[in-house]
Amino acid sequence: MLLSNTNPNHCMTLKAAILVILVAFASHAYALWPLPKQLSTGSTTLKLSDDFDITFDGDSAPQDLLDAISRTKDFVHNDKLQRLVVGRGASDTDAVSSAQSLSSLVLSMDSGFSGQMRSLSEEAIDLLELRVEGYSLTVPSGGSQAELKANSTLGLFRGLTTFSQLWYDLDGTAYTVEAPIAIMDEPAYPYRGLMLDTARNYFPVADIKRTLDTMSWVKINTFHWHISDSQSFPLQIPGFPELAAAGPYSPSMVYTAEDVKDIVDYAAARGIDVLPEIDTPGHTMIISKAYPEHIACAEAKPWASFANEPPAGQLRLASSSTTNFTQTLFSAASSLFSGKYFSSGGDELNTNCYDQDPQTQDDLKKSGKTLEEALAGFTQATHGVLHEKGKTAVVWEEMVLEHNLNLSASNTIIMVWISSAHAASVAHAGYRFVHAPSDYFYLDCGAGEWIGADPEGNSWCDPFKTWQKSYTFDPLANLTEEEGGLVLGGQQLLWTEQSGSSNLDPIVWPRAASSAEVFWSGPGKDVAAALPRLHDLGFSQGNCHSDTAKLDGIRTWSSGCLQVMKSIRNSKR
Amino acid sequence: MLLSNTNPNHCMTLKAAILVILVAFASHAYALWPLPKQLSTGSTTLKLSDDFDITFDGDSAPQDLLDAISRTKDFVHNDKLQRLVVGRGASDTDAVSSAQSLSSLVLSMDSGFSGQMRSLSEEAIDLLELRVEGYSLTVPSGGSQAELKANSTLGLFRGLTTFSQLWYDLDGTAYTVEAPIAIMDEPAYPYRGLMLDTARNYFPVADIKRTLDTMSWVKINTFHWHISDSQSFPLQIPGFPELAAAGPYSPSMVYTAEDVKDIVDYAAARGIDVLPEIDTPGHTMIISKAYPEHIACAEAKPWASFANEPPAGQLRLASSSTTNFTQTLFSAASSLFSGKYFSSGGDELNTNCYDQDPQTQDDLKKSGKTLEEALAGFTQATHGVLHEKGKTAVVWEEMVLEHNLNLSASNTIIMVWISSAHAASVAHAGYRFVHAPSDYFYLDCGAGEWIGADPEGNSWCDPFKTWQKSYTFDPLANLTEEEGGLVLGGQQLLWTEQSGSSNLDPIVWPRAASSAEVFWSGPGKDVAAALPRLHDLGFSQGNCHSDTAKLDGIRTWSSGCLQVMKSIRNSKR
Repeated sequence: MLLSNTNPNHCMTLKAAILVILVAFASHAYALWPLPKQLSTGSTTLKLSDDFDITFDGDSAPQDLLDAISRTKDFVHNDKLQRLVVGRGASDTDAVSSAQSLSSLVLSMDSGFSGQMRSLSEEAIDLLELRVEGYSLTVPSGGSQAELKANSTLGLFRGLTTFSQLWYDLDGTAYTVEAPIAIMDEPAYPYRGLMLDTARNYFPVADIKRTLDTMSWVKINTFHWHISDSQSFPLQIPGFPELAAAGPYSPSMVYTAEDVKDIVDYAAARGIDVLPEIDTPGHTMIISKAYPEHIACAEAKPWASFANEPPAGQLRLASSSTTNFTQTLFSAASSLFSGKYFSSGGDELNTNCYDQDPQTQDDLKKSGKTLEEALAGFTQATHGVLHEKGKTAVVWEEMVLEHNLNLSASNTIIMVWISSAHAASVAHAGYRFVHAPSDYFYLDCGAGEWIGADPEGNSWCDPFKTWQKSYTFDPLANLTEEEGGLVLGGQQLLWTEQSGSSNLDPIVWPRAASSAEVFWSGPGKDVAAALPRLHDLGFSQGNCHSDTAKLDGIRTWSSGCLQVMKSIRNSKR
Repeated sequence: MLLSNTNPNHCMTLKAAILVILVAFASHAYALWPLPKQLSTGSTTLKLSDDFDITFDGDSAPQDLLDAISRTKDFVHNDKLQRLVVGRGASDTDAVSSAQSLSSLVLSMDSGFSGQMRSLSEEAIDLLELRVEGYSLTVPSGGSQAELKANSTLGLFRGLTTFSQLWYDLDGTAYTVEAPIAIMDEPAYPYRGLMLDTARNYFPVADIKRTLDTMSWVKINTFHWHISDSQSFPLQIPGFPELAAAGPYSPSMVYTAEDVKDIVDYAAARGIDVLPEIDTPGHTMIISKAYPEHIACAEAKPWASFANEPPAGQLRLASSSTTNFTQTLFSAASSLFSGKYFSSGGDELNTNCYDQDPQTQDDLKKSGKTLEEALAGFTQATHGVLHEKGKTAVVWEEMVLEHNLNLSASNTIIMVWISSAHAASVAHAGYRFVHAPSDYFYLDCGAGEWIGADPEGNSWCDPFKTWQKSYTFDPLANLTEEEGGLVLGGQQLLWTEQSGSSNLDPIVWPRAASSAEVFWSGPGKDVAAALPRLHDLGFSQGNCHSDTAKLDGIRTWSSGCLQVMKSIRNSKR
C-alpha cells in the first residue's frame, strides 16, 4: 500500500508516495512513441533555453526539411504537455529552475553520407526497400548542443519527431528529467500504415491532414487510402466526369485533383507515402450510376446473395470493354498520385453475381474462358497499366489465396486481412505482404451490426480490438525465417460504415499507435510497460484537459485518463 | 431492384427510384424523436414565412418559457437540416416555391387550465408523479396559425421541441411536406434519464451543458449526475474545503457551487431535473485523501479483494463519527441542488474491506452490531438527513436486493443496474424503480478491459450495447400489472473509465436517444422503422457534413451515414 491510511502524518506519507512514483518514472522517456531501437537515459534535469534553436549543419538543406525544423521549433517552444505524475511536474520546479539550458539541436548528415541530399518528400515515396529512416540523437546533460544525424533527409525528419517527444512543460519551460539521452533508431519494418475508407463515409481534407499529422507523430509512413467502394466514389478523375458527378454522396463530398495533390504533398512533407486504392472488380456498384454497362448485379437483391454488404455490384470482368474502361480508369487515377504503389483492391469477389449476369455469361461463352481465367485476364490487364506507370500493384489476400491468377511476385504486394492466420499462406505462395488482419487491426469492430435491423446483431469482426490486443501482434508468427523476409510491415484499418468525421479521432487514436510501435520498434513488448507511454502520447494530444492540442488527432483513451492511471499504479496487485 | 442496370434509359430509372423513395418518406415526420403518442400527417407542402413568429396567447408567461420560445424561433429560422433523400430535398423545390406559408405558432394553456402559470424551471423539478409534460400541437395545411396547447409550462416546452423537429431546410426556407400535422403527446413514463460519471474522468461545464441540450432535444428529463467515486471528488461542498482540495484531479477539474447552480439552472430551463449522486459508502477512496480517518481499506491491495475496481476504499459505516461526517456531507451537498431527489449510491459494497479493517471490527464489537445492522443504521441515518431536506433517496439495487435495510418504500427509489432480470425482484420488494440495466443501457461496454494489462481482456459488460439493443428494452418484462406501476422509467448510463471530454458526444449519441424514445413513446417499436428517424436526428445534429450543428451533442452514427442508409434502403432483402 503506497498511501497508508493509518499514518497520522498524512502529508508526509503522500510525499513519500509521490517520490516513489517519481522514481518509477525516471527510468524511461515516457512520452516517446514508438520506442526507439536503442535508448539510454540519465537522471539529470535539463531545459531548453528561451532562444533554443534548431539548425542544419551543411549546405542546401531541402526546403521541406527546413519547414519541418521550423514546425519542430515551434512545437517544443509552445507544447504544454505536463509530466504524467501527481502534481503534473510541480515537484520539478526547483530542479528545472537550477537546470542547465540546452541552446540548440544541430542536424547533420552522417559522416559516411555522400551525394546530394534529396527532399523529405522525395524520400518519403521511395520504394519500401530503399527507404532510409534511421537516425541517431544525443542530448547532453549539460548545456552543449544536442545532435541529430542520419543518412537521409527522411531519417533526420524521424529524429526531429523523436526530439519533439522528449520534453515536458513546466510553466512555459520545456524540460526533461532524463538527460543525458542517447538514441540510435531505425524501424523494424519498412511499411507502417493506416487505412482509411473514404467511401462508406466521406472525410473532409482537413480530417485527413489532421490524421496525417498524428500518423507522422508516431512514425506511420503509409496512408492507405481506400478511396472508393460500392457506396460512393468521391474521387474526381480526369476524363471521367460522369463518375465524378454520380459517384460522390454530394457535389461537395468529393476529392478534386487539387485536393489529392494537397493531401499527397502534405503527407510526403511529413514522411508519409499515399497508397491509393480503387477497389475492383467487386465493391463497385456506384460506378453503375455513371456507367451501368460495366457493372453486373448492380443493387441486386437479396444483396446477401451478391455481395458481403449492400449494395451489390461488380465490374463485368469478362467484358473487354469493361477491362478497357478499368485500364483507363487506373491509368488516370494512378497519375494523380506520386507514390510507387497502387491498390486495385480485389476483395470479396462474389461469383454468383457473375453466374446470374447474362452479359458476363455471354462474354465468357464467346471467349471460351472460365470465370477464373477471365479474372486472371482482367487483373493482368489492369495491373499491366499500373506496372507501365511504374507502380507496384497491391491487392487484398483473396487475389492469391482464393484465385490462381499468376500474379507477379516481384510486382505485387498482398494485404492479409481476413485473418492473421492467413499470413503464412501468403508467405508460402512467395508474395511480399502487409499485415492488416481483422482479428488484430480492424478499428471498426465491436459496434454492432451496421445494417441496423437486428437488435442482437454483432459486428462480423467482434469484439472491439483494444490497443492491447493490437500491441501483442507477432509479425513473424508461423513463418519460417525466409518467409519472415516477405513481411513488409503492417497497419490498422478503419472501415467507415459506422464512423464519420465526428468520431474519426476517438475511433482511430490512440489505438492506431499500437501497430505503429509494433512495426517500428518490433513486437513482443509488454502492454503494462507501454501503458504509461501511451497515456503520455494521448495527453500530449490534449486529452484530459491538459492545455495542449498541438496534434488534434490523438485524443481518446482506451484506458481512461491520468488519475485513473494513477489509481492503477497505486493499486497494483 | 429499384435501380435497373439493364434499362438503357438510366436517368428515367433513377428518377423513378427517387419517386419511390419520396413516397416511402412521405408517410411520417422522420425528424421526430421521440415519436409522439398520437401523430397524424398529411401530404401538403407548407413552409414557414420569413416573418414566422411564435407567440404566447395569455398574460404573464414565465420568462424561461419566453426564452425557450425565442430559442425555438431562432432554431427554426436557422436550422439547416435537409431531407434525408437523394438530392437532399432538391426535388421539393417547386412544391416549396408554391407552398402556402405558416406565419405563426400560437401557444396557449388548455381551456381546462386554471390557476397561475409556473415557470418551466419550477415544473421541471416537480415530483415525478406530479410532472405534467403532455401537449397538443396542430399545424394546418394552409396559411393559418399553428397551435400548441398544454396544461403546464413544461408541456408547452415539450411541444416547442416537437415543433422544432418538424421542419427541413431548402435553401434557407423551412418547410414540411407532411402538412397538416396533428399531435397529441404525453410521455409513457415520468423518468427518462441519462447518467454521466464525472469522477472517473472530469467533464467541463460546457460538455455537460451541451449534453443537456441534446437530452432536452429528445425529451430526456433527468440528468443523473454521478459526481464522485473512488477516483475523484470534483465537487466543492461548502464546509468541506479539505475535500475540495484533495478530491479533484487538479485544481481546475472541479465543480464550484456556482458551476452547480449554472448546470442546475440551465437544465431546469430545458425541462431537466438534476439527480445528484454522492456514491457511498463504497467507491469513496478519494475521501481518504482529505479525511483518512473515515475510510477503510483505502487503496488496499490486492485491490480485487477489496473493491470491484481500483482503488479500494469505503466509508467506515460502523463508526458514529463517520456516520456524522456523511450526514453533514449529504446535508451540505444536497443543499446545492434544487431537485427533490438525491442518490446516496450504495453499489458494490465489499464486506472483506470491513472484515479486514481493525477499526470497523472494533466499532462493531463496541456497538454489538453485525455489519448488516451497521449498514442499516448508516443508511437510515444518512437518508434521514436527505428526507429532512425534502429529498427522496435514490440507491443502486444492492441496497434492497443484497441487504435488508428496511428502507422506506415511499421515500426511496431504486436503480436497477446489474441486470434487467433484477427489476422483477425490486418490484416484488415493493419499491419504485428506474430501469438502468447494464445489459441494455450501459454506454461504456465493449471497449476492452480498462485496467489495461490484459490484451485479451474484455469489458465486464461486453458486448457494446447498440442503439437497437437498447431500443428493444421492455420496461414491463416479468412484472405483474401492479408491479408495472412501480416503473418510473429508465435511462442509459456512461461510466467514464474509458471516456473523456474528447469522445463524450460520439459515445453517448445517438445511442442515448434510444431509451429516450422507449420511455417517452413506449416500448415495442420496430428498429427498422426507427432507423430513418434516428438518422434524421443525427443529421440534424451536424453529422455527415450537413451544414448544421445546432445541437452539438448528437453526432455519430451507430449505423453510418446518409448514403449508406440509402444503400440499405435500395437493397432491402
